[in-house]
Amino acid sequence: MAMIVLFGVFIRYDEESNPHWIEFRKSHNISSDIENDFYFRYPSFQDVHVMIFVGFGFLMTFLKRYSFGAVGFNFLIAAFGIQWALLMQGWFHSLDYTDGKIKIGVESLINADFCVAGCLIAYGAVLGKVSPVQLLVLTLFGVTLFAVEEYIILSLIHARDAGGSMVIHTFGGYYGLAISWMLYRPNLNQSSRLQGSVYHSDVFAMIGTLFLWMFWPSFNSAITDHGDGQHRAAINTYLALASTVLTTVAISSFFQKHGKLDMVHIQNSTLAGGVAVGTAAEFMLMPYGSLIVEFCCGIISTLGYIYLTPFMEKHLKIQDTCGIHNLHAMPEIIGGIVGAITAAAASESVYGREGLINTFDFEGAFKNMVPTRQGGHQAAGICVAICFGVGGGIIVGCILRLPIWGDPADDNCFDDEPYWEVRDTCLKAQRNFF
Amino acid sequence: MAMIVLFGVFIRYDEESNPHWIEFRKSHNISSDIENDFYFRYPSFQDVHVMIFVGFGFLMTFLKRYSFGAVGFNFLIAAFGIQWALLMQGWFHSLDYTDGKIKIGVESLINADFCVAGCLIAYGAVLGKVSPVQLLVLTLFGVTLFAVEEYIILSLIHARDAGGSMVIHTFGGYYGLAISWMLYRPNLNQSSRLQGSVYHSDVFAMIGTLFLWMFWPSFNSAITDHGDGQHRAAINTYLALASTVLTTVAISSFFQKHGKLDMVHIQNSTLAGGVAVGTAAEFMLMPYGSLIVEFCCGIISTLGYIYLTPFMEKHLKIQDTCGIHNLHAMPEIIGGIVGAITAAAASESVYGREGLINTFDFEGAFKNMVPTRQGGHQAAGICVAICFGVGGGIIVGCILRLPIWGDPADDNCFDDEPYWEVRDTCLKAQRNFF
Amino acid sequence: MAMIVLFGVFIRYDEESNPHWIEFRKSHNISSDIENDFYFRYPSFQDVHVMIFVGFGFLMTFLKRYSFGAVGFNFLIAAFGIQWALLMQGWFHSLDYTDGKIKIGVESLINADFCVAGCLIAYGAVLGKVSPVQLLVLTLFGVTLFAVEEYIILSLIHARDAGGSMVIHTFGGYYGLAISWMLYRPNLNQSSRLQGSVYHSDVFAMIGTLFLWMFWPSFNSAITDHGDGQHRAAINTYLALASTVLTTVAISSFFQKHGKLDMVHIQNSTLAGGVAVGTAAEFMLMPYGSLIVEFCCGIISTLGYIYLTPFMEKHLKIQDTCGIHNLHAMPEIIGGIVGAITAAAASESVYGREGLINTFDFEGAFKNMVPTRQGGHQAAGICVAICFGVGGGIIVGCILRLPIWGDPADDNCFDDEPYWEVRDTCLKAQRNFF
Repeated sequence: MAMIVLFGVFIRYDEESNPHWIEFRKSHNISSDIENDFYFRYPSFQDVHVMIFVGFGFLMTFLKRYSFGAVGFNFLIAAFGIQWALLMQGWFHSLDYTDGKIKIGVESLINADFCVAGCLIAYGAVLGKVSPVQLLVLTLFGVTLFAVEEYIILSLIHARDAGGSMVIHTFGGYYGLAISWMLYRPNLNQSSRLQGSVYHSDVFAMIGTLFLWMFWPSFNSAITDHGDGQHRAAINTYLALASTVLTTVAISSFFQKHGKLDMVHIQNSTLAGGVAVGTAAEFMLMPYGSLIVEFCCGIISTLGYIYLTPFMEKHLKIQDTCGIHNLHAMPEIIGGIVGAITAAAASESVYGREGLINTFDFEGAFKNMVPTRQGGHQAAGICVAICFGVGGGIIVGCILRLPIWGDPADDNCFDDEPYWEVRDTCLKAQRNFF
Repeated sequence: MAMIVLFGVFIRYDEESNPHWIEFRKSHNISSDIENDFYFRYPSFQDVHVMIFVGFGFLMTFLKRYSFGAVGFNFLIAAFGIQWALLMQGWFHSLDYTDGKIKIGVESLINADFCVAGCLIAYGAVLGKVSPVQLLVLTLFGVTLFAVEEYIILSLIHARDAGGSMVIHTFGGYYGLAISWMLYRPNLNQSSRLQGSVYHSDVFAMIGTLFLWMFWPSFNSAITDHGDGQHRAAINTYLALASTVLTTVAISSFFQKHGKLDMVHIQNSTLAGGVAVGTAAEFMLMPYGSLIVEFCCGIISTLGYIYLTPFMEKHLKIQDTCGIHNLHAMPEIIGGIVGAITAAAASESVYGREGLINTFDFEGAFKNMVPTRQGGHQAAGICVAICFGVGGGIIVGCILRLPIWGDPADDNCFDDEPYWEVRDTCLKAQRNFF
Repeated sequence: MAMIVLFGVFIRYDEESNPHWIEFRKSHNISSDIENDFYFRYPSFQDVHVMIFVGFGFLMTFLKRYSFGAVGFNFLIAAFGIQWALLMQGWFHSLDYTDGKIKIGVESLINADFCVAGCLIAYGAVLGKVSPVQLLVLTLFGVTLFAVEEYIILSLIHARDAGGSMVIHTFGGYYGLAISWMLYRPNLNQSSRLQGSVYHSDVFAMIGTLFLWMFWPSFNSAITDHGDGQHRAAINTYLALASTVLTTVAISSFFQKHGKLDMVHIQNSTLAGGVAVGTAAEFMLMPYGSLIVEFCCGIISTLGYIYLTPFMEKHLKIQDTCGIHNLHAMPEIIGGIVGAITAAAASESVYGREGLINTFDFEGAFKNMVPTRQGGHQAAGICVAICFGVGGGIIVGCILRLPIWGDPADDNCFDDEPYWEVRDTCLKAQRNFF
């Protein structure tokens, strides 16, 4: 309801999705309809959309009795989040001061999807331990924090972050971990019978993994510059992802007993590549640069699953259901650092004069910026993202600890039963068996 | 066979998919290959294609023992239907009178997919109760009726229907319901052991739901005007869909005992948004307009599943397996009405002079048309669609009642066994158990 | 590691993915960023990407206990293969002689995906009977052979092969069959309890089938000429695929007892259409031509599953797990022949003068080429592909027979247990039951 009023007051079409486009085109000397931003971005937008709803949703179906919650709540959060994000991001980024309206186009939709991705990452850490109402609260605050943090990092600090390494993944990762830490459940082992996968739930999760993996080049290139920017971001991400798969398989096989592979690593660590190359994807990272970054990332992420997640649960009291620390938070720190270094190392000889200005957007208030300083700003961006993530997570975690949200009991975690009609009498009987 | 002959006689490439394109381009002063219609429409086409084959196919896999039939027969109908649709729609819409050939391009492929969607909706109503031969007959007549109805609504009445609210969903919905009414089975409860979902079949169905949901913006924007038309249709649909999810979850939770969510609602009612915004998607519905429409639709559709479907089965003798009345027929009536109102309210101040002519296609024989009259034509379009749906459905239903089609016995409905090799001995034993 | 060094030495961005693009654009008089090759090819690239990872991966999940291996090893091979393919294809096709670097762009990524497809086809023949290390060896040699064969067929012989009928499918098919023949296991029936599908594994496989089927038009049109070439290839493939579905269903139903349909045929033979139209897709095959080709192909492919696969296993000692002979090898021979005939029959009256030169690339060293001779060259291409496939397969098969690769024992084939952590204790118990 409130959403309708807010949309009524604030949201309008931008000039490219408006019937006045014909006049706009003529007055701006644009020769063809195909130069509408829609055709530059829409295929990537749809890929991102698939990542958000199918990718994240199915990735979390690995638990044996929480598939409805994984896909369904993911759907709920994302659908709620994108509406709220259009408003919040609009106020900060695309408010038209002449008439006080937010003008939306396809880029706004992509940004809203990005914003929601941050909250879905956070959902990964608390998967199975919270109620849908808690998730909506998490999303409401998450999107709000995201919009502020994004405004600070991208507009005030002027960091570049094409694939949202800092803005999305670092923030989302630490936000989720902080909330998980606040909601620590000492007696979670009462649900341990349900905290694992069965054969076909792992196959379902692979659907999520693969769609995330395949479309990550679109994610990182969706809002980069037209032309070479999108092209380069896609290539870098493609290479980075391919490289991570090999590293993950090698490490997983090496550290498991009998050299067996672990589906958890394949499902998650293979994606670390896309995360880590996020910031630098549009820079001249060079193909071998992508490979090096991902080689490191694959190792760290897989080892994280083997050693760090149990350690965090035991000693830091952080119960991270999906291991988002290994998949998003750590690779992102790496990604942010790589982005800072690559930016600092940029030069006119590599980018060309116009290319440099274009890629780093050294225009307007920032026309005296130089690459080395840009590197510093990138680094500052990482810090802001971490602060917002941890700080915001702790505050929101406090709110979520209030006993009014109907969260599940310790022995009911990771179970669809409390929130869904499960008609499946046969499996109901089995539940006591597991 | 017959198809090959008909294609040989009638179907040819249009000027954009013909090697003479190079000359065509030069003679029409088109500066670049990228202005070939292919690049405007192909990404949307592929999304629509996914909706037809994966979306509709998997949406219907929710039944515990009818997944092969759901996906497989959907595949069969759709593949047969698109060939027949190319011919039928070609005769009515794209016949080149100079040489008597049908010229096809990417837009024809999209239209064929749309046409098939109508039949797949109808399949939803009779899912599990008919034989594959009956389905082919249903498709043969369905596509034919569709092409005639589409010709009347779009060409003669000059209604606009970008996402096919009237043409596809209203027609398909009532066509299916009328057939289901004609094929009423009083003893269907003999199959009641199979008329439900199991845990993983609901997860499979979510694959269908999500792909339909995500790609609906492409569906509604696939054949709208280049430039702002496609852009606006995508934005409106995106917003509408997001809004419906929230309403559906709220209503589902509110009306179920213990506030639990029902997967059936999540799988189906969340899609009502895309349906309802179909006609109006390319108009200046405004973002808040989309939200309002969908807010209503989500409520009506979900309540339909809770109250109307049991009522229809008991009192109207309509057995609607997938609840297409709630998902397609009702939202579409709303969508059609919204389209009529939005069209009637169109003005030059909102659209601009050229934008108005362009959006409503007030050209040629219709150059004296005004928006208010257009609204009336839209309303007439809805009536035509309902008449064709109900009338066609009753006639085809009569044909399908002939005892020559090998339909399954009452205690064999919703079961893959009669039509598929099921190798799965373990589950065969279980069947008697359910 | 080695990969990083090789990429560091050889791989660079091409001029369209380079920040110097702005200058390149201006100097080449390109009016807009949208004419960057990225926008011509990226949507098709993503579709191809989905086919490789989800399509091939899930198509092979039909075995009851080999889903992890199917999806996981497919993922591993493909990710390894695309890196190696970028190098190998780069050396042969896109080496820039001025600075000795390989320049990559979106077309290189598509070609790498194509190259990997050949190896994944070969994987289909040995599915479940080899270790991951053997698969990596198979891929390493497969990609290398592929790059050489592709260079000979496309550059030296100057055959046209848009959808890779010869280059990808014929080679991949015979390569896999030859390896399977070399690795013949006389006692494979010890694993026969696992060599079949269960209900839900067949549904998973349908995910693969459908994504392959739907995106095949993108596969065949991904690297054809801008403009009419891509447009025509997509239309031809779309029609061909639709036609094959009908034929497959008819034949499957006709030859099975009680007229029941067999999921194996639906999953595989429906795809033969895309394979067979691969070479000719960009030619003026005419819509009815596509239908005729596919009508034949559907029959041959389905009959192949019913009669030929058992025959090959019994008498030729070729154990072809996925039936790639019926899906890839045979349809491809047909496709190659159709391509040769269509090319030979090309004329200026049908293509137009410029269209003919453009479509067949009669430029440079081949400017005196005529269509009839082109037909001969196409036929020569098929022979080269078969020779490389069979010859390469035998050699690699010999290497794979060395007892150092850790292949599974005869009673452990088609089982995920030896290579994956399977946590599923419940199903572990069941394994002895099957």
